[in-house]
Amino acid sequence: MRETGTLLSFRPSIKVLDATMRDGGLVNRFDFSDDWVRALVRANVRAGVDYMELGYKSDPDLFDKSQFGMWKFCRDEDVLTVLGGVPEGIKLSCMADVGRCNYERDIGPRENSPFSMYRIATYINTIPAALAMAEHCHKMGYETAVNIMAISKAKEKELSLALDLIGNSAADIIYIVDSYGSIYPEEMRVIAERYLEAGEKYQKAIGIHAHNNQELAFANTIECTALGVDYLDATVGGMGRGAGNCRMELLLGFLKNPKYKLAHILRFLQQCMPYIREQGAKWGFDPAYLLTGMLNRHPGSAIRFVDEGRTDYAEFFNELLEQE
Amino acid sequence: MRETGTLLSFRPSIKVLDATMRDGGLVNRFDFSDDWVRALVRANVRAGVDYMELGYKSDPDLFDKSQFGMWKFCRDEDVLTVLGGVPEGIKLSCMADVGRCNYERDIGPRENSPFSMYRIATYINTIPAALAMAEHCHKMGYETAVNIMAISKAKEKELSLALDLIGNSAADIIYIVDSYGSIYPEEMRVIAERYLEAGEKYQKAIGIHAHNNQELAFANTIECTALGVDYLDATVGGMGRGAGNCRMELLLGFLKNPKYKLAHILRFLQQCMPYIREQGAKWGFDPAYLLTGMLNRHPGSAIRFVDEGRTDYAEFFNELLEQE
Repeated sequence: MRETGTLLSFRPSIKVLDATMRDGGLVNRFDFSDDWVRALVRANVRAGVDYMELGYKSDPDLFDKSQFGMWKFCRDEDVLTVLGGVPEGIKLSCMADVGRCNYERDIGPRENSPFSMYRIATYINTIPAALAMAEHCHKMGYETAVNIMAISKAKEKELSLALDLIGNSAADIIYIVDSYGSIYPEEMRVIAERYLEAGEKYQKAIGIHAHNNQELAFANTIECTALGVDYLDATVGGMGRGAGNCRMELLLGFLKNPKYKLAHILRFLQQCMPYIREQGAKWGFDPAYLLTGMLNRHPGSAIRFVDEGRTDYAEFFNELLEQE
Repeated sequence: MRETGTLLSFRPSIKVLDATMRDGGLVNRFDFSDDWVRALVRANVRAGVDYMELGYKSDPDLFDKSQFGMWKFCRDEDVLTVLGGVPEGIKLSCMADVGRCNYERDIGPRENSPFSMYRIATYINTIPAALAMAEHCHKMGYETAVNIMAISKAKEKELSLALDLIGNSAADIIYIVDSYGSIYPEEMRVIAERYLEAGEKYQKAIGIHAHNNQELAFANTIECTALGVDYLDATVGGMGRGAGNCRMELLLGFLKNPKYKLAHILRFLQQCMPYIREQGAKWGFDPAYLLTGMLNRHPGSAIRFVDEGRTDYAEFFNELLEQE
């Protein structure tokens, strides 16, 4: 019998993962100052957040390092330098994209690394490559998650095959990812049940990473939580690509485990998030994101729309419909 | 058997009510220009919105008329003058607060009025007064709704008694109102089931009016819709007190009835909503609203916090906890 929670109880297996620097890094080219990073680690530790994802393990041969902050590459030695060692009271996570990470060269044994977990981000058609990466990370001693992106575009049959493949792999966690912010709660409950069934069959934990295109990121996250999903992604202030993510402040306000202490995130919000906005980073709900979300499209065109300062939403809606 | 919808069907009994001027009027002292009002009526008619609530029927003996726009008072003759008669293709609604409306004097027969519906806003302890008002409005020929506010503070037993009282009254519609934006979707589903049971027993339609303190207004509205709630409140851009309301653009993007045409609301958003912000009206999500929402408090203190330009969320959280 799967353990679930009620509005007055909590499930100790729930883990909160702060993805502010990773998903948020997509809107400021991973340009976080060292002091800011240390302040976020401190806030997360005090708030009882379980994992903190620092960024991507991108292949420096594929990206111009002068164009991005170090958190796009997350070299172990850089992380250890900035943080002054491995922080206590929180586990560090790093994301690796299929095809953008030279994992055999860049992901070494866990005992020499600040990271406890690698999360492999994959589209459904690159699952075999993702599983090879997961296998490598598992062998190196890391907790390993596979995050299947853009599932709102996947066919039923494909998703079943994907869950079976990951089920039989070395991965510890399978993540539901609503990349386009297009999934309504009643659909999300059906998806979560499918993942949870696969999780029970193959002894994998399930996670949720939601986007806020339709102001449903928090709602979808807590619906999943009620059904038994254990790994919950959130970001401070919802910082993340396009419409952003589930807000950490909403999530910690909801969770009943007394280890979570919202006040530390509130303090960070006040003291450290204005700097990020002042630098010019943009995220958060805009009607353009609702349009790509409701049409189940990649948010790229909406991000350009917002970046260009456009507000002709009806015209943008027409443009999107003409591409159907 | 109650009729519900699916993600690919629609229920013709669903009615969308635009409350932009009524709930939105609370953040700009009902100061809408005549041209702006006419543009919103046009947009709503074209978008297929069923009802439009223009404001309150407040007693001019209780409020200083020089401090508010005319939509706080909604005199029939003012409405007819501004709109040039009764608009076709949409029904007009007006809200009357218990204790703030001289209804026997100010609400006359429907045939002389631009309004089709009166909605009586009441706290649970003033239900008898609300029912007297509903009885009057019904006799005058109007559709009549009773909106029970702040139900998150009501006791189980009180709510049952309230539903029975309204069930036996002349009211046509009973509204669920999440005044504090404190209700989570899994709670909202339970509440909606209770209201819908009362609605079946007494042959009343059920409505939902949600607030966005925890970014759950849209989620709660569509959860209610899926269960059979028929009257759905929304406002353009979410304009409304504090964190605001369910956004009309999200709601019309979700509803499957082809009569609803989102593009007209998108155009209004672009052309007419910036003016309201430029006038200084403030609304929308802020961490302060999540705090009053999660603590099930009236948003008044959060509204002051935001108005004062405060961002010391952790301190505000302390202040709220000290009042527990």
